[in-house]
Amino acid sequence: MTKTQELNPNSPVFDPVKFLKRERDASTIKKDEINTFLESNPEKRDLTHLIIDQIVNDPVLKSDSDYYDRSRPEEREITVRKINKMSLYMEHDIKTVRKQFRDKDLIQELQENSNSIRPLNNKDLSIFNTRLSLVHNIDPQLGTRIGVHLGLFGNCIKGNGTDEQIKYWLQERGALFIKGIYGCFAMTELGHGSNVAGLQTTAVYNPDTDTFTINTPDLAASKWWIGGAAHSATHSAVYARLVVNGKDYGVKTFVVPLRDVSTLQLLPGIAIGDIGAKMGRHGIDNGWIQFRNVVIPREFMLSRFTKVINENGKVSVKTEPLLDSISGYSALLSGRVNMVMDSYRFGSKFATIATRYAVARQQFASAPGQPETQLMDYPLHQFRVLPQLALVYLVSPSAHKLMNTYYTTLDELYQSSSSNGPVDKASLAIVTKKLKNLFVESASLKATNTWLISDLIDELRQTCGGHGYSQYNAFGRGYDDWVVQCTWEGDNNILSLTAAKSILKKFGDSVSKGKFDKVLDSDAFSYLEPSFISSAMSGSTKFDLSDEPSKLYQYTEVWGVALVKLLAHVGKLIRQTKNIDNVSKFLVLISKFHAIHSMLKAYYEKLSSPTDSYVSDKATKEVLWSLYKLFSLYFIDKFSGEFQQFKTFNSDQIAKIQDKLLTILPEIRKECIPLTDSFELPDGMLNAPIGYFDGDIYNNYFNEVLKNNPIEADGPGKPPYHSLLSGMLGRGYEFDARLGGAAKAEVLSRLSK
Amino acid sequence: MTKTQELNPNSPVFDPVKFLKRERDASTIKKDEINTFLESNPEKRDLTHLIIDQIVNDPVLKSDSDYYDRSRPEEREITVRKINKMSLYMEHDIKTVRKQFRDKDLIQELQENSNSIRPLNNKDLSIFNTRLSLVHNIDPQLGTRIGVHLGLFGNCIKGNGTDEQIKYWLQERGALFIKGIYGCFAMTELGHGSNVAGLQTTAVYNPDTDTFTINTPDLAASKWWIGGAAHSATHSAVYARLVVNGKDYGVKTFVVPLRDVSTLQLLPGIAIGDIGAKMGRHGIDNGWIQFRNVVIPREFMLSRFTKVINENGKVSVKTEPLLDSISGYSALLSGRVNMVMDSYRFGSKFATIATRYAVARQQFASAPGQPETQLMDYPLHQFRVLPQLALVYLVSPSAHKLMNTYYTTLDELYQSSSSNGPVDKASLAIVTKKLKNLFVESASLKATNTWLISDLIDELRQTCGGHGYSQYNAFGRGYDDWVVQCTWEGDNNILSLTAAKSILKKFGDSVSKGKFDKVLDSDAFSYLEPSFISSAMSGSTKFDLSDEPSKLYQYTEVWGVALVKLLAHVGKLIRQTKNIDNVSKFLVLISKFHAIHSMLKAYYEKLSSPTDSYVSDKATKEVLWSLYKLFSLYFIDKFSGEFQQFKTFNSDQIAKIQDKLLTILPEIRKECIPLTDSFELPDGMLNAPIGYFDGDIYNNYFNEVLKNNPIEADGPGKPPYHSLLSGMLGRGYEFDARLGGAAKAEVLSRLSK
Repeated sequence: MTKTQELNPNSPVFDPVKFLKRERDASTIKKDEINTFLESNPEKRDLTHLIIDQIVNDPVLKSDSDYYDRSRPEEREITVRKINKMSLYMEHDIKTVRKQFRDKDLIQELQENSNSIRPLNNKDLSIFNTRLSLVHNIDPQLGTRIGVHLGLFGNCIKGNGTDEQIKYWLQERGALFIKGIYGCFAMTELGHGSNVAGLQTTAVYNPDTDTFTINTPDLAASKWWIGGAAHSATHSAVYARLVVNGKDYGVKTFVVPLRDVSTLQLLPGIAIGDIGAKMGRHGIDNGWIQFRNVVIPREFMLSRFTKVINENGKVSVKTEPLLDSISGYSALLSGRVNMVMDSYRFGSKFATIATRYAVARQQFASAPGQPETQLMDYPLHQFRVLPQLALVYLVSPSAHKLMNTYYTTLDELYQSSSSNGPVDKASLAIVTKKLKNLFVESASLKATNTWLISDLIDELRQTCGGHGYSQYNAFGRGYDDWVVQCTWEGDNNILSLTAAKSILKKFGDSVSKGKFDKVLDSDAFSYLEPSFISSAMSGSTKFDLSDEPSKLYQYTEVWGVALVKLLAHVGKLIRQTKNIDNVSKFLVLISKFHAIHSMLKAYYEKLSSPTDSYVSDKATKEVLWSLYKLFSLYFIDKFSGEFQQFKTFNSDQIAKIQDKLLTILPEIRKECIPLTDSFELPDGMLNAPIGYFDGDIYNNYFNEVLKNNPIEADGPGKPPYHSLLSGMLGRGYEFDARLGGAAKAEVLSRLSK
Repeated sequence: MTKTQELNPNSPVFDPVKFLKRERDASTIKKDEINTFLESNPEKRDLTHLIIDQIVNDPVLKSDSDYYDRSRPEEREITVRKINKMSLYMEHDIKTVRKQFRDKDLIQELQENSNSIRPLNNKDLSIFNTRLSLVHNIDPQLGTRIGVHLGLFGNCIKGNGTDEQIKYWLQERGALFIKGIYGCFAMTELGHGSNVAGLQTTAVYNPDTDTFTINTPDLAASKWWIGGAAHSATHSAVYARLVVNGKDYGVKTFVVPLRDVSTLQLLPGIAIGDIGAKMGRHGIDNGWIQFRNVVIPREFMLSRFTKVINENGKVSVKTEPLLDSISGYSALLSGRVNMVMDSYRFGSKFATIATRYAVARQQFASAPGQPETQLMDYPLHQFRVLPQLALVYLVSPSAHKLMNTYYTTLDELYQSSSSNGPVDKASLAIVTKKLKNLFVESASLKATNTWLISDLIDELRQTCGGHGYSQYNAFGRGYDDWVVQCTWEGDNNILSLTAAKSILKKFGDSVSKGKFDKVLDSDAFSYLEPSFISSAMSGSTKFDLSDEPSKLYQYTEVWGVALVKLLAHVGKLIRQTKNIDNVSKFLVLISKFHAIHSMLKAYYEKLSSPTDSYVSDKATKEVLWSLYKLFSLYFIDKFSGEFQQFKTFNSDQIAKIQDKLLTILPEIRKECIPLTDSFELPDGMLNAPIGYFDGDIYNNYFNEVLKNNPIEADGPGKPPYHSLLSGMLGRGYEFDARLGGAAKAEVLSRLSK
């Protein structure tokens, strides 16, 4: 046995490998078409394949099962080794986009910032951004550690800096190429997280020296949770209160150097410590920072929207209020958008592992002498696993769509708000509206999906029984790494409330004033169209949720009706109680329903599009529609309380929906292996032996355990702390004897004399 | 700042300490009475206080924040150090129960097993069992590591061994005193978990030598997840197929020695390895075991119910079928019962931490210039935290009640099924029924509560924002340690299905045959009483869920009605489809509803009892009733889909229940600090600085972080892997130059010639 002996392939007991093969052989659906559908289009699909292939074969970047056995110091160091490697890919990726691999070095030209060369833009970073998103899937701590530098530090400068400041810090100094300087994002403090406007760190302007002095006035003002601060960052984007002539102008952003770039020694006035043990993502060097009279030049304030001007000693502060308020969105927005994509990728990983295990694993025979039943053949198991698979499918189109909207909206914003030259007020008004919609959409999708994926990981781990609790099968660490997504870059509850309040406001405008922006709102907020609202409220919209192709949009629309009814109920409650806080529970629900509606709509539109679905095979399309229906029905059943309470459905209809659910599950069960194969995740991306492609669950798992836990060198079975155990087991009969025998009757009698 | 500077106590920004003090000062409820209520009675309360006091002050047993920073080898060793200490407490505790501290050493007498001394029984172990349960709360891995030895190995022998075998292994050999031998419980295999009857390990009887040979026939038959196997166990209770004369008699239990008790070297034919990294409980040495022709004497088979008899070469197998089937219950039952108690204790810990944090933490001001609002004053926050607090309160009475039922039923079983002398068939029939009911009750309560506490930890972690993700605040490790409770000792879904099928059967008997056991079923299954069923089905039971004292039982009864309606629906579905597997989702729900009903009933009965509640203060009782109502209403709202679908309530009634929920929350919010103080958990038990008693959240948290992460010795801020970072940041402009310059135009032109 042990390593050399394998599971007998002819054993009558279990048949894992044959099961997976059999299911693959029996399938007729087109995995290639599905993968193109999931990856948005052929170009993105090819790029994704190419990058994944590089990652799992790169000796530095690949993750192996030893990932689950490392100490924190090891993780920290290995993560930097990986960043180092990623920095080289970064240069390579930019050159690939610009097709410049010869003669003058492109990166050098960009850093020298000669006029002959176009500055970097989002398109130049598109390959690397995809690479970063994919690497996050195999090693979330690596993704974050780079993401904080590029995404948070970088976007803070992009969102708040002047064009010159952006070019200087990100391009000339090399930050965007992960060289020269390394940034962190010093927003949150020990005492303030969600309430950014309440941050306490101060930046006081000194007119004499034309500088700011940065200070941490109180323990609670210590910058806290700052990723990259403990060990890597040379610079920080600091959120601090701008104080000029004793007047507090609120929280603005400043670039504050932390460390000597060559020795990494802390600069004067900077105190930094390690945050220490976290629930997950141990490879991120989160730290705290305290500033004591740290002086920076005035020019280090990011001044796109707010400037301190010193004209011969006459100091003034100039602000563009509208834009200043937008700037708050920008740094965190990218993270939220990316987390929706992460939801798809993380979900696909765990759905693949759990589905393959459920098909390969047998437990309990239906009758004596029969082979034991595959877990996936139990209806309860199908009910636990397959809706999660459907969820992953449903995230994908909305994640890609949100990402596209993000990039196009940001481009429009930069075009209309250049810091050089006049602001184009008309187009700025439009882009501001778009940005606000994007904020609502990303908040609702980020919060809802990061929650749903937490639940998915937890539920799917449980479907793998004890083997799901082994760290080598990815669920434990995956969960611990994942769940911080529900808290950071906007706490999910706060985001949900904010999104819901905007939706409620739009609802009110539509109902009371017939106000509805057909250009900007008809996509994400189609259910707020006045005529839709009135037909939903009057109950004239009927749903039979049939399988007729012409009625498939019903599965989306029914959520629009549910939303309208929920919004109307909440509106009534607020009018009655005059207290919006009291309906918070329902507000969170509005955001969830909105996200579900958006996901269904994006999926419906993509799959029914003659040009964008890339799915031509009929049987394949059929299965993809089944997933869509399953998702909609599963969540109707899950929220059947609200569907009944607000009279979208009555109890008989709910019972029919539950019936229908039970008929769809076996259809999807038949194709569940091809449907997870279609994610095209190589074993190196899964890093979980019970989920490997070949389905050889027992041999794969045993071998990974053995590889990471070789028999002890000093004699198998004898633990290093042997003496503690043998001393305990071998201790004498008499406790008293071990104390010297002073409790013996004879002694006690003498003692009592 | 750093360690020396403290949060300014006069700072206008935050007021954590004063808030907690103020809420305590304003409270009028009697914490002592509540604590007695929660701990069941004054005797148990005093014992609990005494033991907790010992644990948090014992230099070996106490847990500090360094608990969160240890490597796996450190955890393993420290855990054994703690077991060592617990073994001494064990002797002490038995002597305390028997009041024998002088003259002849009690433990020696018990081990010598002289006829003059009464053998050990459950009462002798009562103090130690409480100690073990409490220590599990501060260090779950320690609890488990001892629990496997005493609870699983010990109970397997107690449940399956003859009186002589029990006395020998547990008393003479010292296992019950944690000396002499150390046991593990080798049930699950790589290929079989829930399906115990399908285990593959074989024990073949050899008539020639009157021995068994134990073998692992296949990789999938490797014993897997065996706690204590990797490093500590000298003996194992092995589940293996009994094969006599070529006939397979199914899975029986055997004591198989694994290691030399003095050197801990593995014995011949035993191969053992470490299971390695787990999601949590790293201090447990879970291992795998493979047996290759391991020979044990026939007498090592545990033979209370099945015996192999060799009379002069004539070999036969004698089985007591009824009792043999019961024996399957016994080993895992204790664990399940204990997990309900764990649910109360774990829940109380996290409810305390999150409640204190929510009262101490302020975020967002309601108006400019106002102090920021305490988190707990937000209705959404109340909705997220307070029902979890109510849950913890509701677990307690049912946990104590289940524990009592367990001990009395087991005692009755031993009395009626002694292996010496004739079996008392009449009383055995009764105790068998009781045992089956206990199985249903413990399965439903174990599954439901371990799930609910998983959700509680997750939800409450999120209410603490980023600080909840810090390992030092207990949630992360707490969750990882906890969730295995949903899988082991009976997977929650399997347990729920089994419990529900029994309940459904009872329901069928009651409806169709009017069969209802007034003596045995009227407690846990009161809702199955025929007249209750018919009034529930006819809709004649009306609920106004008012605050009238005489109507408080309604909050329990409404769940009985919901259960009846759910059972009726499920019965109908099964009749229609002839397939019980298809209704599995509803079966799981039956088990959940049953558990909720049991918890409400136990709480109601205790609190309304003139003798057992120990709560005489009116205001105190009022608050305790509010928790009861909150629990019932919260879960009605949560399951409002089923309450409406099966017509327990209509949508207007659900809306009223939601209203009522919102009026109860602020009542409990007022007393939330005293209500968590009443758990009387010292800081050393919480091990989470944001939850410490004084409420000084920022200073406490900062100091723990600093203690565990002192500034690096070789220069603050300069990481050990400095060269990897500075090399990356300082790399030259030109990528090509780093490759030797071969891509320059001039070189390329030469190369193309």
